[in-house]
Amino acid sequence: MNNLTQEKVEQAKNILLNNNIDLWLTFVRETSACHDPILSLLYGDHDLTWPSALIITAQYGSFVILGRYEAQTALDLGAYTQVIPYDQGIKLPLVKLLHQIQPRNIAINTSQDDVLADGLTHGMYLTLINILEGSEFRNRLISAEKLSALLRGCKTPIEVDRIKKAIRSTQRIFSDLFMKIHTGMTEMQVAKLIHEKIKSEGLDYAWTPSNCPIVNTGPNTAVGHNAPTNTVIQPGHILHFDFGVKEEGYCADLQRIVYFPLKESTDIPLPIIQAFNTVRKAIQSAFEAIVPGKTGTEIDKIARSIIIDAGYPEYMHATGHQLGQLAHDGGALIGPEWERYGKT
Amino acid sequence: MNNLTQEKVEQAKNILLNNNIDLWLTFVRETSACHDPILSLLYGDHDLTWPSALIITAQYGSFVILGRYEAQTALDLGAYTQVIPYDQGIKLPLVKLLHQIQPRNIAINTSQDDVLADGLTHGMYLTLINILEGSEFRNRLISAEKLSALLRGCKTPIEVDRIKKAIRSTQRIFSDLFMKIHTGMTEMQVAKLIHEKIKSEGLDYAWTPSNCPIVNTGPNTAVGHNAPTNTVIQPGHILHFDFGVKEEGYCADLQRIVYFPLKESTDIPLPIIQAFNTVRKAIQSAFEAIVPGKTGTEIDKIARSIIIDAGYPEYMHATGHQLGQLAHDGGALIGPEWERYGKT
Repeated sequence: MNNLTQEKVEQAKNILLNNNIDLWLTFVRETSACHDPILSLLYGDHDLTWPSALIITAQYGSFVILGRYEAQTALDLGAYTQVIPYDQGIKLPLVKLLHQIQPRNIAINTSQDDVLADGLTHGMYLTLINILEGSEFRNRLISAEKLSALLRGCKTPIEVDRIKKAIRSTQRIFSDLFMKIHTGMTEMQVAKLIHEKIKSEGLDYAWTPSNCPIVNTGPNTAVGHNAPTNTVIQPGHILHFDFGVKEEGYCADLQRIVYFPLKESTDIPLPIIQAFNTVRKAIQSAFEAIVPGKTGTEIDKIARSIIIDAGYPEYMHATGHQLGQLAHDGGALIGPEWERYGKT
Repeated sequence: MNNLTQEKVEQAKNILLNNNIDLWLTFVRETSACHDPILSLLYGDHDLTWPSALIITAQYGSFVILGRYEAQTALDLGAYTQVIPYDQGIKLPLVKLLHQIQPRNIAINTSQDDVLADGLTHGMYLTLINILEGSEFRNRLISAEKLSALLRGCKTPIEVDRIKKAIRSTQRIFSDLFMKIHTGMTEMQVAKLIHEKIKSEGLDYAWTPSNCPIVNTGPNTAVGHNAPTNTVIQPGHILHFDFGVKEEGYCADLQRIVYFPLKESTDIPLPIIQAFNTVRKAIQSAFEAIVPGKTGTEIDKIARSIIIDAGYPEYMHATGHQLGQLAHDGGALIGPEWERYGKT
């Protein structure tokens, strides 16, 4: 992922410059235990053990301050101007560097609205405050949520290629699966076919394997993010999938439905055709309405009102989200103005 | 992992009771993006999408408040007394439950010293403060670091079995590997043999695959947590490994060294024998000194002084750490009182 990390650190510098922010500080420790979501963009898939700082500046290059034993990994990454190893504590080298750079503002990874810009734990926030206490930098902390959203939301060419690749693989697995499934199988048996395919192709899961894929058959299944059950596919059932693979670190997230005809008639019942067409129309209308300048709530309303106006109950979730290193990626959502979605 | 989760939630209740704490609140969202390390003990390997609360009380049972679409997963887990689904926001059901329970104190996952007790992000902390503002609960927040350390540090029988299993598998992979390695191979080729073995046995990595195993050969290799390089094993080299597998969710973490004799003599040089024996003596002495009541710094001093007194330079890291779901698991460390180790 080296080329990608270099590309993203370079992109981050330009975002800082364009947003009049002097310095972006990602402050982490033991990242294999608690992982700031920005790390996979700014530090590849490597972990940092002792308290470490990734520092990107608008004008003075980029820096990693970290435990000495991990310095070689940072150097090999080739994405940072300077690697500053320490032995006993990060406080002195961090304060020294800030004094050299004299940033007017310091963006940190904290956000109430965007989980992906909220990687700084409360404990590490307090540690940072302790380190800066008494210095002029104490009151220059701002949220990096805008930087994070731009860095994550604006995909580089390498990222777009990887997402397309993950989508193609997911579609190929669906195509292959649709040849194999039949009534009499359970949700779990269907899921197992997908798990075997992912394993044999050496792919990863876009989210937790226990409910990737989500497989729901028939009218009595739980709706939502639950694991496949022993429910048996029967004639007349709709089988619903929510599934995606992760490939080269990037995710797909696709839903599909399959109808199993009754024995007495292979016709698809009218209510199913109507529901399918309504959902398709909602998605297609939202898609066509997406142009620069529109907000996520405006696009959400277009899809949502088509479903409601057709007489269906309102779906109690957002219309769409971004894709990336996570299935639910990105700072912005196509969704309603509900408390649980904050300002995303 | 259901039985394990039930076991740990039950253990957590008893820890609350014994420590005179009324309620433990784990407050999370989009855990596939940003994961509180306590979740794998209290919620298995499942993710929570919308703002969610895992609430364990000393006296009134345990609760999950979560988005409606994920309620079935929480019910299936069978570890919580009550599952409380919501549609639009968590504030009302959370405040209502707190009013019913009337906890005198509320432990939250924040800690400057222990990364594993510090899963609450600063943004989620601010959201929680907003929710509690104006209520009597606002000033009853305390750190759950003691609860977390006890829950993580006191392994249940299921956990001990799994750790032993991971250690045995790691030892088996080492034994197999030692039959196959020879001078002329690169660090990366050695690492590749381990990767293939992990894959073929269906095991996981105890830490990031890019430096699991760590493989260092000869005098010019970087010391520490870096990835294997193209350095070639030569006669007279010491080959060093740092490696562990994760099996059924639990980790091993073992170091091994191998000496490759010179062509002119198969004897192991005296300095190597002396260094090996000194390190073995340090480890063995520390191991024998571990009894209830001793502190981690006392044990660390025993091992550290044996190395230093024998004339070797001091190692600039701790002597030992706990194992568990993470290679670096647990609230306490066998280490020196350095800034970077906080109070662990």
